[in-house]
Amino acid sequence: MPELFGGVETGGTWCVCALGAGPGELVDREQFPTTSPAETLERIVEFFAERPAPAAIGIGSFGPVDVARDSPTWGQVTTTPKPGWQHTPVASVIEHRLGVPVSFDTDVGAAALGEHQWGAGRGVASLCYLTIGTGVGAGLVLDGRPWHGLVHPEVGHLRIPHDRERDPFAGSCPVHGDCWEGLASGEALAQRWGVAPEDLEDAHPAWPLEAEYAALGILSIVAVVSPHRVIVGGGVTERPGLLEMIRDRLRVLDGGYLDTPMLGREIDSYLVAPQLGDDAGVLGAIALAQLAGPERTVALSRGA
Amino acid sequence: MPELFGGVETGGTWCVCALGAGPGELVDREQFPTTSPAETLERIVEFFAERPAPAAIGIGSFGPVDVARDSPTWGQVTTTPKPGWQHTPVASVIEHRLGVPVSFDTDVGAAALGEHQWGAGRGVASLCYLTIGTGVGAGLVLDGRPWHGLVHPEVGHLRIPHDRERDPFAGSCPVHGDCWEGLASGEALAQRWGVAPEDLEDAHPAWPLEAEYAALGILSIVAVVSPHRVIVGGGVTERPGLLEMIRDRLRVLDGGYLDTPMLGREIDSYLVAPQLGDDAGVLGAIALAQLAGPERTVALSRGA
Repeated sequence: MPELFGGVETGGTWCVCALGAGPGELVDREQFPTTSPAETLERIVEFFAERPAPAAIGIGSFGPVDVARDSPTWGQVTTTPKPGWQHTPVASVIEHRLGVPVSFDTDVGAAALGEHQWGAGRGVASLCYLTIGTGVGAGLVLDGRPWHGLVHPEVGHLRIPHDRERDPFAGSCPVHGDCWEGLASGEALAQRWGVAPEDLEDAHPAWPLEAEYAALGILSIVAVVSPHRVIVGGGVTERPGLLEMIRDRLRVLDGGYLDTPMLGREIDSYLVAPQLGDDAGVLGAIALAQLAGPERTVALSRGA
Repeated sequence: MPELFGGVETGGTWCVCALGAGPGELVDREQFPTTSPAETLERIVEFFAERPAPAAIGIGSFGPVDVARDSPTWGQVTTTPKPGWQHTPVASVIEHRLGVPVSFDTDVGAAALGEHQWGAGRGVASLCYLTIGTGVGAGLVLDGRPWHGLVHPEVGHLRIPHDRERDPFAGSCPVHGDCWEGLASGEALAQRWGVAPEDLEDAHPAWPLEAEYAALGILSIVAVVSPHRVIVGGGVTERPGLLEMIRDRLRVLDGGYLDTPMLGREIDSYLVAPQLGDDAGVLGAIALAQLAGPERTVALSRGA
């Protein structure tokens, strides 16, 4: 049996725990609602305590989070609007309770790594994993490693053009109003149209507008970091035909300026759907645990 | 005497050549207008042919350029609107004519590296060097190395909100109209207000608008790649008071969402002016030549 690693995805709505070594090699997997921090962390600890000890655990968490390993607040969810979760020390609680080395990243950072390792980003030098679901976020893998920088990417809060004649909706972001997330997230769709995104017909004008907003934000990602591939995931993007519309708009927005076939005739292999489905986050968390090998130098005794 | 390196900055307007090892260690420096490709490349070749041979030459060029070392069109200016320069093989001509290993990057990529090595970015793990001059562009240094990705950053062409009531100007970019560069570059200022940017008074409404546009674009950079520092250079940003206005707007646009003092009380050390002045580009090109050391394996004979 291969060495076992733990993966935890703490999403805004669901929390997923898994034990294994990669896709098709999951020994166990459990999913439960993300409730209060105390209750949620307790269920995570129980999941691992009842099973064979993993060599390391990776956690991908909703954010913003502190991913700076040398920071006193490493492993915390920081300024989230999610009630009760502000400054919750997710990683250190799990590391302390289980006595296993823990790696910590954003949920999208973990998913980016998972797709790079096993999914739609295998073999590329860099990628951006974008999710448009309840919120809008992205993780970067650059030179095969997760990239954080000063904090970590928070693409949902960049600004894009908002034509108020075409779209008078003020935006759903409680902090910024009409930032990218405030215009293009599932929450924004629900507030703008008064129904859940999955209940909008394929022919609804919501979708061309969504494609426009998605393409504008992706253009910012491409213009800033020029990733070798962009993977577009998240519940909203599962709508049939939407990815094709986003590709069309991105091509038009670039207007041939960037002299690369990847934004032209090869755009179908540049802007792609994820391949790991609902498991991208938790598999990415396992990849994160595996990658952390060299950092696993701190002696930790199980139990504490 | 330290080992000598060559630096070449081919800007849209001026071309700078230098020989040396860093700031205060330039043996020679020459500057001339960027005219036709043939004439300009000839003057560059002459500059080096008449002087002691450098160990390597770095070139920072206006773009877009092909910086992929394994590409058949490596070292070319690609789709530039600058007359006559499309598909000019800048790097290979110089490498061939002088028989010296050549490293090639964008002008802003070289400037970013120069500021990281000797200027306002010493010691930081990552930085973005942004220039707002005739155009708008940026270079990234990530983990101490220039970052290119698929093509290279082209931040000037991302889109930002454009309030046409406040600013009815359609934008100056010949490809995109009101992209970031089309709204915020020196060329955009000149077209919008009908005078050269340097002739606008300090109290002119041009400057708060410029600060708004600058902050919106910088927010996209911060949201996507989260650099440890942003250096803001270029002729337009030399206006006294403008950098402070940009900081204020960036802080307001973030609205405290990113839980870092760098976008709050420490923003003065996050968003900073460059320190190498007019020599950032050519010094960066020298840094590029020095960095290329390990790549200098191809045997090249002087003359050819």
